[in-house]
Amino acid sequence: MTDHSEPTDELIADVFARNCASRAALEDVASKWGLLALIALSEGSYRFNALRRRVDGVSEKMLSQTLQALERDGIVHREVITTIPPRVEYTLTVFGRQVAAQVSSLAALLESTAPEIAAAREAYAKAQAASAKTPM
Amino acid sequence: MTDHSEPTDELIADVFARNCASRAALEDVASKWGLLALIALSEGSYRFNALRRRVDGVSEKMLSQTLQALERDGIVHREVITTIPPRVEYTLTVFGRQVAAQVSSLAALLESTAPEIAAAREAYAKAQAASAKTPM
Repeated sequence: MTDHSEPTDELIADVFARNCASRAALEDVASKWGLLALIALSEGSYRFNALRRRVDGVSEKMLSQTLQALERDGIVHREVITTIPPRVEYTLTVFGRQVAAQVSSLAALLESTAPEIAAAREAYAKAQAASAKTPM
Repeated sequence: MTDHSEPTDELIADVFARNCASRAALEDVASKWGLLALIALSEGSYRFNALRRRVDGVSEKMLSQTLQALERDGIVHREVITTIPPRVEYTLTVFGRQVAAQVSSLAALLESTAPEIAAAREAYAKAQAASAKTPM
């Protein structure tokens, strides 16, 4: 009954379905830079270069692609401010703010457990090193 | 004051800091396959092949890398069941369930707005096509 071949209003949206709009949006949001850009933009509007500085490590090209993808999904709003010289500002749409809120919760969870994550990574590395030394 | 050069308990965790454990975990979780694997695993334990079927589109190699990364971060638990023949099951740790809950909320939001996202993508494509035809 559930035909995922065409994402329309009458069908059930499913992030696992390869051609569903929700999955496409998840892939745009869930990209490493997508998440960080969203968290940054939840702080307020940003001009491109300022956003690039905030999202430490992103290249101009990747940020540009990321913002385009998020704009296409209706998550980010790109506005040309008609000053002299003109400038471009990025903000979140209403929908974008909902998405950013979810993403910020996820980030906050990971930040609050950063020590545990660091400990887990260390334990894993040690276990890997130990099993590499153990003769089979 | 805040030195992000070494992620330890005494420092402030920050997903924007390139060497913070929380950012490393965010990158593992936020990978396209990481998110879907987490949502799948929140349904229950999975054997590798079943998980690969559930996460439609993922290759064996990518799923393997994803699960390893999530295991390393203390999010996924890999267990060898000593049956004959032995089999491997993947489950979420307690922490993993918290992360998966956040991710599932994000997915649910995107699924509930899939029609709007699809409409936004269509409008964007049309605008792009229109501006491509407009002589400068």
